[in-house]
Amino acid sequence: MTRIALAVDLGGTKIDAALVDGNGSVLPDGRNRRPTGRAITPDELRAAVAGVVSHALAHLPEGAEFAGAGIGSAGPIDQAAGAIHPVNMRGVHGFGLVEAVRDAVIASTGEFDPVVRLRHDGGCLALAESWIGAAAGTRASLSIVVSTGVGGGIVMDGRPVGGASGNSGHLGQVHIGELTVEEIAAGPPSVQWAQLQGWRGETGEDLARAARGGDRIARAAIERSARAVGQALADASTLLDLEVVAISGGFSNVADDYVDLVAAALADWADLPYARATRVVRSALGGDGPIIGAAALVLQG
Amino acid sequence: MTRIALAVDLGGTKIDAALVDGNGSVLPDGRNRRPTGRAITPDELRAAVAGVVSHALAHLPEGAEFAGAGIGSAGPIDQAAGAIHPVNMRGVHGFGLVEAVRDAVIASTGEFDPVVRLRHDGGCLALAESWIGAAAGTRASLSIVVSTGVGGGIVMDGRPVGGASGNSGHLGQVHIGELTVEEIAAGPPSVQWAQLQGWRGETGEDLARAARGGDRIARAAIERSARAVGQALADASTLLDLEVVAISGGFSNVADDYVDLVAAALADWADLPYARATRVVRSALGGDGPIIGAAALVLQG
Repeated sequence: MTRIALAVDLGGTKIDAALVDGNGSVLPDGRNRRPTGRAITPDELRAAVAGVVSHALAHLPEGAEFAGAGIGSAGPIDQAAGAIHPVNMRGVHGFGLVEAVRDAVIASTGEFDPVVRLRHDGGCLALAESWIGAAAGTRASLSIVVSTGVGGGIVMDGRPVGGASGNSGHLGQVHIGELTVEEIAAGPPSVQWAQLQGWRGETGEDLARAARGGDRIARAAIERSARAVGQALADASTLLDLEVVAISGGFSNVADDYVDLVAAALADWADLPYARATRVVRSALGGDGPIIGAAALVLQG
Repeated sequence: MTRIALAVDLGGTKIDAALVDGNGSVLPDGRNRRPTGRAITPDELRAAVAGVVSHALAHLPEGAEFAGAGIGSAGPIDQAAGAIHPVNMRGVHGFGLVEAVRDAVIASTGEFDPVVRLRHDGGCLALAESWIGAAAGTRASLSIVVSTGVGGGIVMDGRPVGGASGNSGHLGQVHIGELTVEEIAAGPPSVQWAQLQGWRGETGEDLARAARGGDRIARAAIERSARAVGQALADASTLLDLEVVAISGGFSNVADDYVDLVAAALADWADLPYARATRVVRSALGGDGPIIGAAALVLQG
């Protein structure tokens, strides 16, 4: 009998749900999303959860064993309370996401006491990379997203490292000088930095095109982002003794050599040999990492 | 029957061995040390190991169950190889410390295949603090030493977090700007910084006395050290979601409020609420942490 998990991924712009099988494959049927956004209220979020969960579960294959629901959420979270405190959705701070998903699962499946597990999205991504992605088979990995924000998660010996409240891995809020990694290296501040130097584009895609076309300012903005990420990773590798760092996220595609630039900065800044030995690689899962990892919370548990 | 572990702690100036019981109490009989030092050779280290181990094991109480040997070593280490690469003892890089201790244990006890486990000293300290010290009962802790260097170790859910090669927790080599935490905050650079400002003392003890007596430069040197440690801990708490940081080491006693100064800097620098919530406390074990933690490697295993 095939084991199938419901996976839910809550972000600042949308909430996704999908069914995922025991090999980490996302089933095409039932995958669906609804918008969220900065101003979402608890009632709106509860309705969105009920909608995506019931839609996904309506496609549960005949005869499949339902393993439970795994949730990845924009952080921070409060794992013990099953609640979320997402930086970019202030109206739903303290929202009981575990309970909302559990209620929706019970309504759809009639299960009495379904397994429902919560991590922040970076933790889910890291679990997916260590399960079937770029960090598979490694003892210690950090997987990060460089996009409109910078996030990440940690896995050691195949287990997600949660910390006191489930929030380990928030690399974006680590400092480089007075600023955070996210404030320097994410897409929007990189574009903004280039504009301040006189560059005339508007988006990360513009920045990528301009750099490929030889624009020096665009290229410098990309190198500045990669250098900040690599510098933060040098310290993270020193503190955590990482074997692999896997990088995903839209802005990490801004240049073909973005990952190499990050790796070079890590090697420059890491003082101890074991930290310099950390490999930096591109994600093997791309955008599906968080949803696959959310499923892994119950499929592996 | 009482379970007793042999604990060995290898540092840059000496190697200690002691017997430790299942409650984490260091038995007074058998505790002994030999000098090491920057220039020690592999043969000299092997002889020192054999000496301290046989002396300690000669005091194994009648009828006690021997649980095995735990080793804490100055880092970095290579846990898989059972070898050490201590920054401050270049002549013994690659030395097989696990094998040397195993040989000495076999020679003393006649055991066929004793359990022998290795961590870096910071990892042992952290394990001791989480076992019977200031981090007992917590889900996620970092325990650090501020002394002639700065080191540390991480424990999550009662288990030491090792990383790829066993070296997680090296806070001293994390960067604050261009320098490392150790280069700013350890005792010797703090004294040196004060001297560069015109202060005339020589040692950390001088610095402590001068600051207590109202010397502004001495006080500023102490605050500078605590600020660097707290700033690094803010990033470590963000990345690891720590419940408690326990501080030990000679230089942490340089001022009564040193731990409070560190805590204030952590709160200043941490952006995310869960990181600001990390408690910073003084070690409950003082200098015995590493040797108790080395024993815990086998008593808890």
